[in-house]
Amino acid sequence: MAYEQILYDVGDHIATITLNRPERLNAWTPQMGRELYAAFAAAAADAAVRVIVVTGAGRGFCSGADMQALRDIQSAAKSGGGEVAAPDAAGDLAAPSIAPLHPALDTPYAYPQSIPKPVLAAINGPVAGLGFTHMLYYDIRIASDRARFTTAFARRGLISEHGSSWMLPRLVGPAHACDLLFSGRVIDAAEAQAMGLVNAVVPHEELLPRVYERATELATLNSPRSIAVMKRLVYTHQFVDLATASAETDREMLASFPSEDFREGVASFLEKRPPRFVGR
Amino acid sequence: MAYEQILYDVGDHIATITLNRPERLNAWTPQMGRELYAAFAAAAADAAVRVIVVTGAGRGFCSGADMQALRDIQSAAKSGGGEVAAPDAAGDLAAPSIAPLHPALDTPYAYPQSIPKPVLAAINGPVAGLGFTHMLYYDIRIASDRARFTTAFARRGLISEHGSSWMLPRLVGPAHACDLLFSGRVIDAAEAQAMGLVNAVVPHEELLPRVYERATELATLNSPRSIAVMKRLVYTHQFVDLATASAETDREMLASFPSEDFREGVASFLEKRPPRFVGR
Amino acid sequence: MAYEQILYDVGDHIATITLNRPERLNAWTPQMGRELYAAFAAAAADAAVRVIVVTGAGRGFCSGADMQALRDIQSAAKSGGGEVAAPDAAGDLAAPSIAPLHPALDTPYAYPQSIPKPVLAAINGPVAGLGFTHMLYYDIRIASDRARFTTAFARRGLISEHGSSWMLPRLVGPAHACDLLFSGRVIDAAEAQAMGLVNAVVPHEELLPRVYERATELATLNSPRSIAVMKRLVYTHQFVDLATASAETDREMLASFPSEDFREGVASFLEKRPPRFVGR
Repeated sequence: MAYEQILYDVGDHIATITLNRPERLNAWTPQMGRELYAAFAAAAADAAVRVIVVTGAGRGFCSGADMQALRDIQSAAKSGGGEVAAPDAAGDLAAPSIAPLHPALDTPYAYPQSIPKPVLAAINGPVAGLGFTHMLYYDIRIASDRARFTTAFARRGLISEHGSSWMLPRLVGPAHACDLLFSGRVIDAAEAQAMGLVNAVVPHEELLPRVYERATELATLNSPRSIAVMKRLVYTHQFVDLATASAETDREMLASFPSEDFREGVASFLEKRPPRFVGR
Repeated sequence: MAYEQILYDVGDHIATITLNRPERLNAWTPQMGRELYAAFAAAAADAAVRVIVVTGAGRGFCSGADMQALRDIQSAAKSGGGEVAAPDAAGDLAAPSIAPLHPALDTPYAYPQSIPKPVLAAINGPVAGLGFTHMLYYDIRIASDRARFTTAFARRGLISEHGSSWMLPRLVGPAHACDLLFSGRVIDAAEAQAMGLVNAVVPHEELLPRVYERATELATLNSPRSIAVMKRLVYTHQFVDLATASAETDREMLASFPSEDFREGVASFLEKRPPRFVGR
Repeated sequence: MAYEQILYDVGDHIATITLNRPERLNAWTPQMGRELYAAFAAAAADAAVRVIVVTGAGRGFCSGADMQALRDIQSAAKSGGGEVAAPDAAGDLAAPSIAPLHPALDTPYAYPQSIPKPVLAAINGPVAGLGFTHMLYYDIRIASDRARFTTAFARRGLISEHGSSWMLPRLVGPAHACDLLFSGRVIDAAEAQAMGLVNAVVPHEELLPRVYERATELATLNSPRSIAVMKRLVYTHQFVDLATASAETDREMLASFPSEDFREGVASFLEKRPPRFVGR
């Protein structure tokens, strides 16, 4: 697939996806959505990729749905021209190549959670609206101290779409979720970290070096097999009780024992050398 | 309804409810409970009200159940005189005028969560026991730096009533909930914020100005329709899985497109002027 | 039971369990697990004990499964010798003397949550792997500023066992859980507190004095009956909706009214003296 609105690059076991409409602060278009999901699918399928990083070109991360798209929707709604499609409705996204982890997670925007590899956001600047929603479904969010966040929906007469009223409270609790959703106010990176919206904040100039440092550690010091199993456990265990979850983890622990990665994990530790995990 | 133990005031789209027994740090009585819920119902029904603020008169926010009520209960229990009623049992509260959002939320003290308008607490001083419980069901809590918090129950031989053992862990997690409930210790505003019990802490003298600043923004910059829909989504999506929640949000997004508030949200943005939302 | 790998001590209503293999940073062995659970059962059954404190001897809290155990597992797996047992599989733990609070919590490592007394961790140093998992099931965690935390699993080719992929996200949210589980990186006490993994951090020299200060307050100022009821409510209310939970709390509140502890709680408050709770 030839990408026009994103950049896709693979090196050192890390796939980097860059939202690339910098003149519009990477405003989301249906095409950008299709390209992004195609890139996710490519990274998921590529055995050389162990970690996925998403960032934005230029000053912003993603400023939300492109305003032209919103105007087109209004024109269609006003003319009474039948069904009005959301600017980024499910059907607009590329068909995922990977089955969802669980029927309870089966919704297009949660697709990054079903990829058996860590997905990191390197949030380099403003995030708004649909960009905000999308970011919630990544595993780990690292923000520049210049990042700014707003849900924006209530200021446009819209609502939190694609399940963000479900996912946001699970990250920041219901009280911060109400604050962010009702007010549409802009918060800075420090406040985002304090409420749990991002994992960490770093000085702007160090954002990409620090994210790649983490990505490299994830790709080289940790078993891809271990990560894939634990990612599935974390997201699917939201829907079962502790006894059920615990029984499954104990079965998975036993299944780890004959793996090559476990043998390598112990051997490298005893030999005080870096591991060479193969992912099985 | 004539209020004796609270004050009720409406202006600039904001209803303010003030617990008003300052000589007792606004200790909760059955009458205060009935008046508070009647005021909530009035604010919910009043089309001029877009935001509800609750605060306390004098030095305290709410010091919990009035001690005289507890002594009366003990006398009744000692005399073996049949059923002993809780000082604030469900039946004591005014009948809500609004159906609960969901059967899973159908309990009297959660009534503020079913009101389709933001409910803000301006916590001006000590909060204890039943006042603590009650505060958990507001959407957003802003505290003075003089606020102090204690569950107090275990120090009186009582337990966390009205579902607070359910709601508190959803705000602060199970470990902080155990700490606060088992110990009854008093925490200050900074600790309350760090554990997620309050959204923000401000200098005491700035409490009401800052809360009204937020309330005014909520009332003037954001669509009441958007807020009502998202409030329902946040609280009801606690009881469904992500796929179900996401499908509902996408239906709600489509339902937003023909709304007057969406048209006004885009128009005001493009015309760089404040919006004039009508709430539909 | 004679303990060899732990110390068990009771005084002033507080049982102290000390993991005691200081030369190995208290690495976990099957025997240590059996002894720890036997000590939990003894403390649970002892009417003189109102609070349980767990700490580690020497520099560490618990460095995880003993490496010798892991090598034994690998040898067994390599020789194809039939079933390979986890180093700390459920059957290795002493049979609990107390029924789980709820079938949804019925898994051996969650046993501390079913004990009707507060369980506090005094985390005096490094915690890794199985020690990390185990610590998640205590009620309250207080850490020395010298404590360090790592899940470690992915670095050995293993996975998060005993339900920690369920419990960890409930303490720190899914994003921090993914970070800690995927990376196996070491975090310090301040970061652990910021993400909610521990309740509080204190200077190393003050760790035990501060934990005993809290334990003494729990044991002397609070009703053991109140604590037992609220602990059950907090952990079991994870599995019911708010309406159900609220109805149960109101029944429990009514059941508190005839208790000796409620009478003593009100009397000691009015008489401005310390309470003498009896726990019923």
